[in-house]
Amino acid sequence: MLLEAKSRLVMIGDSITDCGRARPIGEGRGEALGKGYVALVDALLGTMYASREIRVTNVGSSGNTVRSLQQRWQTDVIDLKPDWLSIMIGINDVWRQFDMPAQPEIHVRIDEYEATLRELVAKSKPLVKGLVLMTPFYIEPNPQDPMRAEMDRYGRVVEKLAVEFGAIFIDTQKAFEEVLPHYYPATLAWDRVHPNMTGHMVLARAFLNGIGFSWN
Amino acid sequence: MLLEAKSRLVMIGDSITDCGRARPIGEGRGEALGKGYVALVDALLGTMYASREIRVTNVGSSGNTVRSLQQRWQTDVIDLKPDWLSIMIGINDVWRQFDMPAQPEIHVRIDEYEATLRELVAKSKPLVKGLVLMTPFYIEPNPQDPMRAEMDRYGRVVEKLAVEFGAIFIDTQKAFEEVLPHYYPATLAWDRVHPNMTGHMVLARAFLNGIGFSWN
Amino acid sequence: MLLEAKSRLVMIGDSITDCGRARPIGEGRGEALGKGYVALVDALLGTMYASREIRVTNVGSSGNTVRSLQQRWQTDVIDLKPDWLSIMIGINDVWRQFDMPAQPEIHVRIDEYEATLRELVAKSKPLVKGLVLMTPFYIEPNPQDPMRAEMDRYGRVVEKLAVEFGAIFIDTQKAFEEVLPHYYPATLAWDRVHPNMTGHMVLARAFLNGIGFSWN
Amino acid sequence: MLLEAKSRLVMIGDSITDCGRARPIGEGRGEALGKGYVALVDALLGTMYASREIRVTNVGSSGNTVRSLQQRWQTDVIDLKPDWLSIMIGINDVWRQFDMPAQPEIHVRIDEYEATLRELVAKSKPLVKGLVLMTPFYIEPNPQDPMRAEMDRYGRVVEKLAVEFGAIFIDTQKAFEEVLPHYYPATLAWDRVHPNMTGHMVLARAFLNGIGFSWN
Amino acid sequence: MLLEAKSRLVMIGDSITDCGRARPIGEGRGEALGKGYVALVDALLGTMYASREIRVTNVGSSGNTVRSLQQRWQTDVIDLKPDWLSIMIGINDVWRQFDMPAQPEIHVRIDEYEATLRELVAKSKPLVKGLVLMTPFYIEPNPQDPMRAEMDRYGRVVEKLAVEFGAIFIDTQKAFEEVLPHYYPATLAWDRVHPNMTGHMVLARAFLNGIGFSWN
Amino acid sequence: MLLEAKSRLVMIGDSITDCGRARPIGEGRGEALGKGYVALVDALLGTMYASREIRVTNVGSSGNTVRSLQQRWQTDVIDLKPDWLSIMIGINDVWRQFDMPAQPEIHVRIDEYEATLRELVAKSKPLVKGLVLMTPFYIEPNPQDPMRAEMDRYGRVVEKLAVEFGAIFIDTQKAFEEVLPHYYPATLAWDRVHPNMTGHMVLARAFLNGIGFSWN
Amino acid sequence: MLLEAKSRLVMIGDSITDCGRARPIGEGRGEALGKGYVALVDALLGTMYASREIRVTNVGSSGNTVRSLQQRWQTDVIDLKPDWLSIMIGINDVWRQFDMPAQPEIHVRIDEYEATLRELVAKSKPLVKGLVLMTPFYIEPNPQDPMRAEMDRYGRVVEKLAVEFGAIFIDTQKAFEEVLPHYYPATLAWDRVHPNMTGHMVLARAFLNGIGFSWN
Amino acid sequence: MLLEAKSRLVMIGDSITDCGRARPIGEGRGEALGKGYVALVDALLGTMYASREIRVTNVGSSGNTVRSLQQRWQTDVIDLKPDWLSIMIGINDVWRQFDMPAQPEIHVRIDEYEATLRELVAKSKPLVKGLVLMTPFYIEPNPQDPMRAEMDRYGRVVEKLAVEFGAIFIDTQKAFEEVLPHYYPATLAWDRVHPNMTGHMVLARAFLNGIGFSWN
Repeated sequence: MLLEAKSRLVMIGDSITDCGRARPIGEGRGEALGKGYVALVDALLGTMYASREIRVTNVGSSGNTVRSLQQRWQTDVIDLKPDWLSIMIGINDVWRQFDMPAQPEIHVRIDEYEATLRELVAKSKPLVKGLVLMTPFYIEPNPQDPMRAEMDRYGRVVEKLAVEFGAIFIDTQKAFEEVLPHYYPATLAWDRVHPNMTGHMVLARAFLNGIGFSWN
Repeated sequence: MLLEAKSRLVMIGDSITDCGRARPIGEGRGEALGKGYVALVDALLGTMYASREIRVTNVGSSGNTVRSLQQRWQTDVIDLKPDWLSIMIGINDVWRQFDMPAQPEIHVRIDEYEATLRELVAKSKPLVKGLVLMTPFYIEPNPQDPMRAEMDRYGRVVEKLAVEFGAIFIDTQKAFEEVLPHYYPATLAWDRVHPNMTGHMVLARAFLNGIGFSWN
Repeated sequence: MLLEAKSRLVMIGDSITDCGRARPIGEGRGEALGKGYVALVDALLGTMYASREIRVTNVGSSGNTVRSLQQRWQTDVIDLKPDWLSIMIGINDVWRQFDMPAQPEIHVRIDEYEATLRELVAKSKPLVKGLVLMTPFYIEPNPQDPMRAEMDRYGRVVEKLAVEFGAIFIDTQKAFEEVLPHYYPATLAWDRVHPNMTGHMVLARAFLNGIGFSWN
Repeated sequence: MLLEAKSRLVMIGDSITDCGRARPIGEGRGEALGKGYVALVDALLGTMYASREIRVTNVGSSGNTVRSLQQRWQTDVIDLKPDWLSIMIGINDVWRQFDMPAQPEIHVRIDEYEATLRELVAKSKPLVKGLVLMTPFYIEPNPQDPMRAEMDRYGRVVEKLAVEFGAIFIDTQKAFEEVLPHYYPATLAWDRVHPNMTGHMVLARAFLNGIGFSWN
Repeated sequence: MLLEAKSRLVMIGDSITDCGRARPIGEGRGEALGKGYVALVDALLGTMYASREIRVTNVGSSGNTVRSLQQRWQTDVIDLKPDWLSIMIGINDVWRQFDMPAQPEIHVRIDEYEATLRELVAKSKPLVKGLVLMTPFYIEPNPQDPMRAEMDRYGRVVEKLAVEFGAIFIDTQKAFEEVLPHYYPATLAWDRVHPNMTGHMVLARAFLNGIGFSWN
Repeated sequence: MLLEAKSRLVMIGDSITDCGRARPIGEGRGEALGKGYVALVDALLGTMYASREIRVTNVGSSGNTVRSLQQRWQTDVIDLKPDWLSIMIGINDVWRQFDMPAQPEIHVRIDEYEATLRELVAKSKPLVKGLVLMTPFYIEPNPQDPMRAEMDRYGRVVEKLAVEFGAIFIDTQKAFEEVLPHYYPATLAWDRVHPNMTGHMVLARAFLNGIGFSWN
Repeated sequence: MLLEAKSRLVMIGDSITDCGRARPIGEGRGEALGKGYVALVDALLGTMYASREIRVTNVGSSGNTVRSLQQRWQTDVIDLKPDWLSIMIGINDVWRQFDMPAQPEIHVRIDEYEATLRELVAKSKPLVKGLVLMTPFYIEPNPQDPMRAEMDRYGRVVEKLAVEFGAIFIDTQKAFEEVLPHYYPATLAWDRVHPNMTGHMVLARAFLNGIGFSWN
Repeated sequence: MLLEAKSRLVMIGDSITDCGRARPIGEGRGEALGKGYVALVDALLGTMYASREIRVTNVGSSGNTVRSLQQRWQTDVIDLKPDWLSIMIGINDVWRQFDMPAQPEIHVRIDEYEATLRELVAKSKPLVKGLVLMTPFYIEPNPQDPMRAEMDRYGRVVEKLAVEFGAIFIDTQKAFEEVLPHYYPATLAWDRVHPNMTGHMVLARAFLNGIGFSWN
């Protein structure tokens, strides 16, 4: 497993990451890490790699787009001095174009998405030991669905940046595709976005596999 | 993994099992399975064995002793027609002797514990394809601590019954001992009983290892 | 418009009909008719046909299947002595098969659906001046989507029964298809089932057109 | 229908307009548009003119008089850059003179009303493609009732300004008079001011007829 | 003042009497007598006739018609063994005909009103030292208003029964007419039914004048 | 009655005056005047002198001493431009010496009380048409009780200032003494300070008698 | 100290005893014993006589009179099989005569008080190892105060019964008199009945002194 | 007893001291002193030394370490001008090292603890008549337990400073050890830190014995 003992892992993103984490910084006792994949990653690391004493910090915020991340990047990422950083952003950037089409000022189109995410990655990569870039996803099996298709395009941006900056790349959409033959989307998420705990475990597993986690 | 496709797994116990599950029966959407090891077991089975479509049902109830289980065994276990059944009980049987010593009528002493648990196991084993018996536990590293010592004695009863009835035996105390060198008890549970999510993952992993689960 | 002066129109269904209506019977001041298509039908009749003094009663109940309707048919339909009756049921009959696949005892398969709905229609048709049968719907534009495809099959059952009993038939799925070219489903309903007010207006309009409502 | 595709329609007013809209700006998912005529206008436009993708924004505020509108005109109207603007104000300007007669400093007499409304209209008319002026109303059938009589005088001011500035004029009092022969006022509004959904549909219909809406 | 020392005065009616009184019987400390005219009557008797130690009991219930009174007459009047009894009922009997016209089964027409009230008065008059019959009222100055006109007819029934049975008659409508030249109805009651404290004082004064109360 | 038509009467004091009045200024609909003697004064004036249209404003604040009044005198009295002003203060000035004896910094001793009250009266008397000074009180019949005795001394200060400035003097203690032969103190006020509605009526009557109110 | 190791002490009474204890039986963790003298007695016994493991059970109930105790004596005293029993009752028996004089049916006059208390004591004394009878009290220093005087008379009844049955007698009124020279009553209890923690400590100390408690 | 009449005793600390005290300063009626040892100290002084009229002020704050005390020392200690001062701090300084080991920035190591506490004591000792230093504690009987061992080291620092500055030293750990042979830790405190009322009485008694309190 790639994270060394006493590493600090900061995970940033939107409501999928947030899941009710503590404010202003998501760490500590109780449900400070929220109830999603971040808490599962922490619990699985804490169980299998207890001796490494990894410190996991959740700074996801519901409703965020990459534009929102940019505004709080200094306080919520840089100032926390992470050893490892994971970013999963883009769902709201796409979703707002489909569920609130009349309000273009809150849409983050793909060019702005790529430029902003590149800026954040470029600024942060030199400061950390490891960077993990996770794609946004949409729990919709039909690749012709317009929102799914757009989400895939944003996912390709993430992949491109991971290659460009030498980051670990996690394809969360692909992780969901492995289980989607067995679940109708509504089983995992009524709105095809906010997963139940099984869906969060799919995300946690994809992340952990990316950093060389072993269950045994 | 031992559970066949479309099996129903019913998990019964006390507050460690309960964790806020839905009433009257803990299954369905949202947090119907609670927020503890049962939900983690379900999520891990759902992620790694999606094609098996295992049905997990949580019928844990906070504050229960084996005496409480006996009273609701028909409606909460037999009537649900489980294919697999897991039982983790005994913490309150012991704890009340230590935190409410003045009220002996609510203490379940070890003889009553053994007799009642045996009766429940004997009645249920023939009805299920698989039975899992999990010990109670106490997140206290010092084996001379009187409550820990007593909990260990109850754990031996569980082990004896597992052998006697050919059930799968899960030693949860031992599972915690693997991580306790790295955690002070208060990190995992302020009261040394109700674990945080890492503690619940320890339980889920112990259970899953017992039924032949593979992460890969 | 078909409803005569002082007619009583009883509308039954599931959460789409319910929308927070008053208990035990949904009529009276305030939001007694709920916040969905029933209230819109009432308001449009009340505006355009004020002189007819139509009495609208909402007896929808969230989560209901046709099996639930059967259990409360006497008290919630027959006893109210409707002049006109509308039924829109079936969404949960189908949905539970897709979002809670592990619990078959709560699924209402198409044969039971048809038999039960026929029984209710047969029993009620002779008692009313007019009967309106509305299909269930799923706000999903892709007809190959498995839940949409199944919902369409249930809709055909409704159509068959409407023909069989001489009831007015409302194809709500078709009504949504007229607007779906302009909306991504998430705009109308995050879960593709519970519509926003525009979606409810689509339903109200379909119903009113079916009973000869004139907008001018 | 006069509004072109992708127009933004901003509707301002008092509690009749507000109806629980979102803050600071009333638009988005859920009940962001409130539960009154604004939401009905939006739903009817969205159903019958789905392809036009009209953007409706509710900036009504409970208790407002024209004096209140003046104070927030820049942020709540001008800054939103509406293509179309509707104004319905004056009920509280009159009502406070009748239900709180002892507090003259909160009364907006007719001269101030006319002067202020003219200033707002003059400032805004050049900035929009279309302006709709709706009269205040009082759901009281007796024109000799002193509050009704005063409300009618304020309504005449609105009419005069509509003519003066070439705005679309909506006589809401007249719209209510069409249905009042069939309803005792208390049926539509206990306080003769805040209508039930039928009363809001009367308002929505009056507005929509004014902008050339076609119901078929 | 007619009530002798240590008399018990029971006051029954609808929401105007109720005003949040204690359950099941409205008497005792705090706001047990509610916040309406009953509490004012009690306070004025307690201030001016402290030595008489009059016991006032409020058994008004919101929404009641004379039909409701009939159902609880034994427990809420007879069983309390009043020395004096006051009845003010009829507002809802009339109001429901005007604000919920579509639901005739909850209307209490004037014949039923008179028959039922006569039965209650006949049954109770012999059991008490004094009986006070108060008319219902409607705070509407226009006697041609249809609801006001109907309320007046019910008031005449009360007057007729007072004469018939030798009860003290209180014309609450007339009491309001004395102040209505100075108040627009909305000042006293937004819905013209539930008065503010001034309106309740009008009622209390009318009642007290009827029983020979002296302020000095 | 001394107050002329359209006079504004501002009443200031402590919790006895406050009684839950609206903030920041206690006037308007509903319970804006609180539930104590101020509301009763308003209701009695409104009933008996409806044509005078007196405006009553409650600016009492719970817990206030004369020191508190001094701090808010400009905004809560002067700025309101009262025609008539009533002041009832001193209970907390005394009470804190008896129920919180250890905290001398919150005690307002009699010298400070007199000096501060004189300053306020001197500053305000020239600005109003009428000034009413009400004593503080303690519903304790035993004049030797030390808190009662002290309260009486503060009452004498009020009387002295009334004479000095030609204000109307209301002896509330004396008003209570008229009824105390008939009530044990706990009937009127559990803590002998906060009266029930009868106690507030005693206060209202004393005030009204002071300004020449006639009940008939 | 008279209570032997592992004794169960049941304490019954009114709100002074209750103080928010757990239901149905006041014992266990947290504030199960309430926040009054019972909890203090338990804490002091637990601190100074830890080795005796005394079990304290609180079955006080707010508002109770001796008449209330009689109705629940079997379930709340006899069935609990106390070794020691304390009774403190009578405050409400007296208080209701003074704060709710108009409702004689809830007054428990001294004859009924004595007869009922004697019956309870006679029935229970043979069943327990020790019985403690505590007087009711009133935190009023003036013995001529009528409620204080009456409370004293009830206290004499308790004393008489203590002598008659050989019970330990605790004069709580006398205990308060020792501190009253230093406190104005309002410091200890705003209503002279419900004490602050100092007042409860006075009660606890009086009780403990009566059973031979040693503070060192 | 060392505290002279009318002394002010200020008690500062963490959640053990706080226990829900009033803000900003913990003194006054009701539960202003919280529900812990401070309130017990006040009640026992008030009962046994009523004539001294000691003023007790609670300024404990949950979660505080000595670092937190330093930040609020001026406002919460110096400005209150105590005659006597007690300090019990250090539990959170140690606990965070054991229950939140991953967050070193919130740990207060022993060197910082000693330096900061010395600074506070040095600054305050000259200003007061008496200073009481209480050790932190951990209700764990096993002295080899690592958190207990560390807590003992912090306790030695307190002892050292007490000697150095001539303060009264209270060994709370030792006080608990006297009762621990009779209680399993979970009886006194589920988390071995926050005591029940018996545990608080142990603390109160230790404190009072330190200042020469006599129980008789």
